[in-house]
Amino acid sequence: MSVSIEPLIRVPLAELQALLQQVFQRHGCSEAVAGVLAANCASAQRDGAHSHGVFRMPGYVSTLASGWVDGRAVPEVNDVAAAFVQVDAKGGFAQPALAAARQLLVQKARSAGIAVLAIHNSHHFAALWPDVEPFAEEGLIALSVVNSMTCVVPHGARKPLFGTNPIAFAAPCAGHPPIVFDMATSAMAHGDVQIAARQGEQLPTGVGVDAAGEPTTDPQAMLDGGALLPFGGHKGSALSMMVELLAAGLTGGHFSWEFDWSQHPGAKTPWTGQLIIVIDPAKSTATPFSYRSAALVEQMHAAGLSRLPGQRRFIERELSSDRGVSVTEVQWLELQGMLERQVDE
Amino acid sequence: MSVSIEPLIRVPLAELQALLQQVFQRHGCSEAVAGVLAANCASAQRDGAHSHGVFRMPGYVSTLASGWVDGRAVPEVNDVAAAFVQVDAKGGFAQPALAAARQLLVQKARSAGIAVLAIHNSHHFAALWPDVEPFAEEGLIALSVVNSMTCVVPHGARKPLFGTNPIAFAAPCAGHPPIVFDMATSAMAHGDVQIAARQGEQLPTGVGVDAAGEPTTDPQAMLDGGALLPFGGHKGSALSMMVELLAAGLTGGHFSWEFDWSQHPGAKTPWTGQLIIVIDPAKSTATPFSYRSAALVEQMHAAGLSRLPGQRRFIERELSSDRGVSVTEVQWLELQGMLERQVDE
Repeated sequence: MSVSIEPLIRVPLAELQALLQQVFQRHGCSEAVAGVLAANCASAQRDGAHSHGVFRMPGYVSTLASGWVDGRAVPEVNDVAAAFVQVDAKGGFAQPALAAARQLLVQKARSAGIAVLAIHNSHHFAALWPDVEPFAEEGLIALSVVNSMTCVVPHGARKPLFGTNPIAFAAPCAGHPPIVFDMATSAMAHGDVQIAARQGEQLPTGVGVDAAGEPTTDPQAMLDGGALLPFGGHKGSALSMMVELLAAGLTGGHFSWEFDWSQHPGAKTPWTGQLIIVIDPAKSTATPFSYRSAALVEQMHAAGLSRLPGQRRFIERELSSDRGVSVTEVQWLELQGMLERQVDE
Repeated sequence: MSVSIEPLIRVPLAELQALLQQVFQRHGCSEAVAGVLAANCASAQRDGAHSHGVFRMPGYVSTLASGWVDGRAVPEVNDVAAAFVQVDAKGGFAQPALAAARQLLVQKARSAGIAVLAIHNSHHFAALWPDVEPFAEEGLIALSVVNSMTCVVPHGARKPLFGTNPIAFAAPCAGHPPIVFDMATSAMAHGDVQIAARQGEQLPTGVGVDAAGEPTTDPQAMLDGGALLPFGGHKGSALSMMVELLAAGLTGGHFSWEFDWSQHPGAKTPWTGQLIIVIDPAKSTATPFSYRSAALVEQMHAAGLSRLPGQRRFIERELSSDRGVSVTEVQWLELQGMLERQVDE
């Protein structure tokens, strides 16, 4: 999905990120939180992951204005055990909670061989791959799950229960960028459904249902009281269930159906939990992992795969580095406009 | 898939297990290895998981006779770090390797909060859920992946590379049996394709391709030089890739395409690796996990799900406990026959 039919401009990454930081601070985020969110959002835009880039900013502004999320929350890190870290995000965003615990998590993973970070009382409104990719850049393997908000009908059920509940994975790969994927366990990510609705596109069958629970190809019908379906039938549905159990059940975060934002008009961010597992492959006595993953990549190319998971993002990233990050003119003007508006509007 | 069209008998679990133990020993397994494999195979049959029950025995006998797997291997457990255990299965089966390391793994998970077991130089020919379910019965969460043998075409590729690469998950649930799933990342498990072929059934489109790489609904064509497809398109394919990286790349086991059994006619068992991650939810300061997972189950029922993942197995298990384990007359005779045959035939 792309927004390239509209006129584009190219902006240096640092400039985009600085503007986003200003917008976040203008709308109630502390400098620390704004810095983390701006870097996250700018990197999604840089990588062509448009459903989680600048496209998300009106939602961030709206949810901050609603009082639903605390843009100034200071996460509380709890060192629970040799390989277990828990963070109370204090009703703020998940990314600053991860940032606060990250060093301890890496230290534990390197010492114990594996470590887990359980975040609760957190809002996650971004792509999941930026949470795992940096671990792979340090030679670690990372797996993360986050639940979201009820909008997916479990396979065989009559009404929605699960969130889009993505799973993201990152692993180092010698001589290549990290191997990274980030997949909604729904047939399509919610942001992509929103983009399709905005552009008046139809979606394939099997993506979602309308308000009556009937199959539809109209993204707007899925958003207006309808719902999404899991990817891959009962298997994707089981994975989505696992995400609820790990990201909410284990962490102490809310399940996707447990929060009530009806008193906060404009609230957009699911108030749930997130789990991140980090493994240090250097603990294995086998051939260095990154050489093994490079061998896998070689075989995947030999089998005829022209593009590996995550590869499109790295190509876009290089383009953005050469020419600046691509943003539509309309989006750029909207971002400027967000600087003008009052926090309490 | 079911074999109930053939005449059935009911055998007490202990009797079936004892017979299987004798068969394994008769065909070259040590008493310890035979005990582990017999318990595993009998429990699959007990739970109605026929593709991994008695149906597997001719394959076990054939692979043992071929000299491809060592039925007397003594696994070597290596205590690597506070939360990392590695086992060299010494060319034997994966289940005895897990059994040898299990106590240490549980001890580490309870102490560190999470722990990982990396098995390599192992053969896995069984269902994966019996490896994870016992952890849930002890109040722990377990996730396991095992790669197998090249028979799945990565999404977007031209030829097979991955194995059927299952993912299994188990979690405790207050007042309920554990929540357990075990899914091939292929559109169908290899054993189920074999059963369909034997019964002359056709399969849905999207399950596999023939030797020319063309879509087919004939399971025999998939087995005769054809291949399977991943479930859920590019997402299932990415998960299958992750299984290769974790079960082989990380453990030091072979990737699904790396072993050559051509010098061992009758060899059936993939010589790869397996990863098991165990989490102790008691480390989380949240509401006890098993109450949270029970709340999830309640909501899934309320959403209209009549059957949860793994539930069919628990229903069959109860039936088997009341009436004995269901085996076809033909299978029972075959098992008796396996006792007669010489090891070296």
